[in-house]
Amino acid sequence: MLALPALQPSERLLCGPGPSNPEPSVLEAMSRPMLGHLDPELHEILDEVVEMLRRVYGMPRGLVLPLHCTGTAGMEAGIANLLEPGDTAVVAQSGFFGRRIAEIARRYGAEVVEVAAELGEAVPNERILDALDAHPDARLLAVVHAETSTGVEHPLEDLVVELRDRETLLMADCVTSLGGVRLEVGSWGVDYAYSCTQKCLAAPPGMSPVAVSEAALERMRERRTPVPFSFDLLLLERYWVDRPVTYHHTAPILNIYALHQALRGVLDEGLVRRWLRHDAAGGHLQRELVGRGFELLAEPGHRLAPLTAVRVPDGVDGKAVQTRLLHEHGIEIGGGLGPDAPPIWRIGLMGRNASIETADRVLEGLDDVLSAGERAPGGGRAAERHERQHVLPLGPGGRADDVPAAGRQAAAR
Amino acid sequence: MLALPALQPSERLLCGPGPSNPEPSVLEAMSRPMLGHLDPELHEILDEVVEMLRRVYGMPRGLVLPLHCTGTAGMEAGIANLLEPGDTAVVAQSGFFGRRIAEIARRYGAEVVEVAAELGEAVPNERILDALDAHPDARLLAVVHAETSTGVEHPLEDLVVELRDRETLLMADCVTSLGGVRLEVGSWGVDYAYSCTQKCLAAPPGMSPVAVSEAALERMRERRTPVPFSFDLLLLERYWVDRPVTYHHTAPILNIYALHQALRGVLDEGLVRRWLRHDAAGGHLQRELVGRGFELLAEPGHRLAPLTAVRVPDGVDGKAVQTRLLHEHGIEIGGGLGPDAPPIWRIGLMGRNASIETADRVLEGLDDVLSAGERAPGGGRAAERHERQHVLPLGPGGRADDVPAAGRQAAAR
Repeated sequence: MLALPALQPSERLLCGPGPSNPEPSVLEAMSRPMLGHLDPELHEILDEVVEMLRRVYGMPRGLVLPLHCTGTAGMEAGIANLLEPGDTAVVAQSGFFGRRIAEIARRYGAEVVEVAAELGEAVPNERILDALDAHPDARLLAVVHAETSTGVEHPLEDLVVELRDRETLLMADCVTSLGGVRLEVGSWGVDYAYSCTQKCLAAPPGMSPVAVSEAALERMRERRTPVPFSFDLLLLERYWVDRPVTYHHTAPILNIYALHQALRGVLDEGLVRRWLRHDAAGGHLQRELVGRGFELLAEPGHRLAPLTAVRVPDGVDGKAVQTRLLHEHGIEIGGGLGPDAPPIWRIGLMGRNASIETADRVLEGLDDVLSAGERAPGGGRAAERHERQHVLPLGPGGRADDVPAAGRQAAAR
Repeated sequence: MLALPALQPSERLLCGPGPSNPEPSVLEAMSRPMLGHLDPELHEILDEVVEMLRRVYGMPRGLVLPLHCTGTAGMEAGIANLLEPGDTAVVAQSGFFGRRIAEIARRYGAEVVEVAAELGEAVPNERILDALDAHPDARLLAVVHAETSTGVEHPLEDLVVELRDRETLLMADCVTSLGGVRLEVGSWGVDYAYSCTQKCLAAPPGMSPVAVSEAALERMRERRTPVPFSFDLLLLERYWVDRPVTYHHTAPILNIYALHQALRGVLDEGLVRRWLRHDAAGGHLQRELVGRGFELLAEPGHRLAPLTAVRVPDGVDGKAVQTRLLHEHGIEIGGGLGPDAPPIWRIGLMGRNASIETADRVLEGLDDVLSAGERAPGGGRAAERHERQHVLPLGPGGRADDVPAAGRQAAAR
């Protein structure tokens, strides 16, 4: 029986909404001798992964572990564990992933109260608090810290201060923020945060690190209806944390090796330095794009550094540009997500790709493709250079309302 | 912030109930350039994985794809998609994984009818058919083709013949059989089969290949209640099979590379040859163990080749033997699974470890540990050698009621 030829995937610079290119040391870790999932040596590695994840999440208490799934299933695990049929959930949404939270919560029988805003906006915290006032029995509030579909960063830290005296638990989508954007789940009081490995952590896709507060664990212990076995965090705790371990499923051992090495990379670099690096790269990209006459989707003041959504100029075939970037330059950028997405490109500078150099490679590729066959925004290349001059004098630390907000958070602290 | 030292996992010969040691070519595939999950080149790879999985499962029609999870979640996905609250499910169980099916089905609100047998026995097909006669409205019958906790192979092919005219769908746990034991899901008429990557396929843990019949897909299209988003096979089909793809989650790209290469290995070797290799290795191990005076847990006639469960002799500390095998010989074997497991060892010869040489390495390790500090069965080493002489003359093709059944299926065809 003849098999197919071996894989020969092309080299890519992965600057879409994730995955990013894994660190070589992470790939190297995956080729080390494989232990069994019940080997005591592996359990030491699990302990180290949990300890490092606690530091990266800023979550000294509660339960922290990586689930064997991607960010969406990390989202689903939170919903499945924290909501029971008939419970009310308030979901702040202004993009694909906020809507996905609402959709999944409905699958679990929750009454969903959506607080929506336009794509590119952050849902105002006042409106979220109003919704909580109107639904004081809400069991869960879900907010997308970093909306990967629009490049919007939600002002989560401002929100959590207002939630202190409420019983509603807070779930935060940190898929595109963990390891790239300032995040301190424990001191902020987030009850359930989920992320992924393939974006700012620079590991391949395969796991979803989650952080669960003690209040959320208490809620899980008290629930009356069962959760899907695979998402049962109290059972997973018995494998990941309790010693001796209780078998739950065969852990994805090489993905755990990868995450271990990726977390070492984060901590070696230092969290604040890493946030600043993402910030600098994203800020540079956003300034350059604005300088070229492009319009960013995210509103000023809420621009996410690791992921930038750019409107495709009128008259330009956004998908064709992506395809040429991929085939002629080996650069992947993303398009809009979902059937009702506006014409946008999504450019990610995450993990090892969060650098000025990578931003410039993407910009050069975009310049080349647009000049070679597509109309540039603002009347062409000349106008683009003109606009750029207005922005560049601001310099790397420059701030203005029409330039990226990315940079403020980390730089200010 | 100081990070922990880099991983230095020890070399292991993985002869427990899985994972087995991945093929080096599989690990090498994981280090190739990573594509994005929406890259057209990746979608060609997905197509190839599906095509190869169809051949390995023997499933030309219906839906075949690998889920991003391990075997247990593959089990859960089947239950979640094929049962609705209040549905009746008949579960044949004589071990940990059969019981797990029943437990998970109850989590999904099903009325579970358990048809149980003792550990080490296969549930008699007549009793399963009786249960179906008593519950003609049963929506699902679940059978464990290869019970990893006891080393029992269920005579699935004999059962399916009797199910032809029934409307009850058949789910089969093929976690320890796919790629190692004769299995032809399509022609047998299995409606939902699930497996894993880390046993007979010789890839690392991380995915659960599933095969779904057209009747099962029809059932899913007609259901009235939602399934967990992550397990929604009709949505996953839109990413894995339909073109152009619809985003569902970020696929675990390097695990897909690994599976691609592992499946190439299976098809290069040839399915029948691979079944025979597993059969020969398991048969050899089982004969040698019986020859040494050990008692196998699985009843004659239903012994699984890739996984052998051996009773720990009276007076021997089974766990201590495992620990010494691990630390002194670098060999992992498993123990009993679950709180009510009898004292057993579980020895897996799967994937690249399915060889006479590997079986002999395990046997030598066991001999060494037992002679060095533990009482051997049957009165010690002399008796063991004596018993062995009775068995060896049977030769590799020998058959007797007290020697392994492993070997019959594949060898007979």
